[in-house]
Amino acid sequence: MQRWETVTIVGVGLIGASIGLALRKRQLATTVVGVGRRASSLRKARQIGAVTSTTTDLSRGVRDAHLVIICTPVERIATLALEASQHCQPDAIITDAGSTKLEIVRLVETGLKSSSRQIAFVGSHPMAGSEKNGPEFGQANLFEGRVTVVTPSKQSKGDSVDEVERLWKLLGSKVVRMSPKDHDRSVAAISHMPHLVASAIAAATPPEELELASTGWLDTTRIASGDPELWRQILIQNRGGVLKSLDKFEKVLATFRQALERDQQEKLLQLLEAGKQRRDSLGN
Amino acid sequence: MQRWETVTIVGVGLIGASIGLALRKRQLATTVVGVGRRASSLRKARQIGAVTSTTTDLSRGVRDAHLVIICTPVERIATLALEASQHCQPDAIITDAGSTKLEIVRLVETGLKSSSRQIAFVGSHPMAGSEKNGPEFGQANLFEGRVTVVTPSKQSKGDSVDEVERLWKLLGSKVVRMSPKDHDRSVAAISHMPHLVASAIAAATPPEELELASTGWLDTTRIASGDPELWRQILIQNRGGVLKSLDKFEKVLATFRQALERDQQEKLLQLLEAGKQRRDSLGN
Repeated sequence: MQRWETVTIVGVGLIGASIGLALRKRQLATTVVGVGRRASSLRKARQIGAVTSTTTDLSRGVRDAHLVIICTPVERIATLALEASQHCQPDAIITDAGSTKLEIVRLVETGLKSSSRQIAFVGSHPMAGSEKNGPEFGQANLFEGRVTVVTPSKQSKGDSVDEVERLWKLLGSKVVRMSPKDHDRSVAAISHMPHLVASAIAAATPPEELELASTGWLDTTRIASGDPELWRQILIQNRGGVLKSLDKFEKVLATFRQALERDQQEKLLQLLEAGKQRRDSLGN
Repeated sequence: MQRWETVTIVGVGLIGASIGLALRKRQLATTVVGVGRRASSLRKARQIGAVTSTTTDLSRGVRDAHLVIICTPVERIATLALEASQHCQPDAIITDAGSTKLEIVRLVETGLKSSSRQIAFVGSHPMAGSEKNGPEFGQANLFEGRVTVVTPSKQSKGDSVDEVERLWKLLGSKVVRMSPKDHDRSVAAISHMPHLVASAIAAATPPEELELASTGWLDTTRIASGDPELWRQILIQNRGGVLKSLDKFEKVLATFRQALERDQQEKLLQLLEAGKQRRDSLGN
């Protein structure tokens, strides 16, 4: 199946709205239902063409759905996925777009085990987004060329994993398969720990020095502008992974500090070279 | 005087070439002499129109100069400024574009005190640039709308400070006056410490996790791509300032870590909010 009759997007923020816009632009779904708590967000999502109908009632919103994508803040995903599983089509597949996976997959699969309905859930995480929120920042091309991680578990059925992968590929993503655990370790290193550090740099900058801030400070601290409540949830859900990444970062930082304190210039140069080499391996 | 007969730029990298391009585009100098060590850079600078003539001989290059701007890596600035002061026009003013000021101003002023020639030196630091180097990245508009710090000392004569300020204003900069000491403390906080931290994040990222790196990691670590040798010099020259800023950053980071370790979610939220607030006060 390359096309869905009805897709329901739960949570129409930046990610949810972008999925809706991409599905519709690429004519991948006849009906895209937007489910949300706030009428104002739903209205905006409909106005920009991200969804074809909207409701604040989850059970009604997923009733005809063959594919449900939960795009809310991470703490609500598991609950909403389980609730959706009670009301969607019997052959439906549920996925999500959360930045953490281990906790969500565990909670959903535990819940589904004790359910009479055999609905498939496969977690996913599109590595796209921005420090902006809200459907008005949605972009149909948000996922093009970006990696989306799909995280099957031992419980996942192969065909539902394939379908979720197909979804993201159809939206333009490059799909990477990882276990939920590997995913969380990996994003701790390249997203969650850097977020925390960027936020600490911003918070540690005395306001009276900001007059001199240039592109360097602005780039380095850009992600600190992300929604604090969303990030609190992400950091807490991936606490173990973030703390391990932070350990690693602090060790490297301590070697920088030591080289500076001891005036070990050759060592300092080597450390800066290592940082540059890692950074340059990815381009701009 | 709104126009210079002969300006000599010593060091024709990104900053030197941009100054040359801006001077010529705005018709602020009849002759712009480029002085450098490598014939290839000098040739490039001339080809893009950043300078009108070039030489590898400093004494010849500054002979007719009324304004000399030293744009080399910071460790060479003081020596070259003092050497230039022996050969330039008697009414010439010397300035620089280095990212540190305290050490440079101290060395140059000490040297000038024991000199028979009464040449004026006033330090400056345009807060512009990029992780790129070389004259080929020069831009005539690099300084437009950017802050340039001019750092007079007790020894500076008022009219030479005014003239250096005028230079940067004519290139489109907003000029801020600070003491060399205040400058170094300030840039430690908004540039040098963040550089070190960004480099440590990049170096601490396991290569096998880079596949998932997205715009967040790329923004946060962008400055780590800067030239390691230039940054070794900057960090060493501003060692005291950088270590003090690092203390402050590490304290804030420790509060983040503690909140995460102890699952203090309200505290974590507050910290993220503080980071966002500081970041958002500057826009994109």
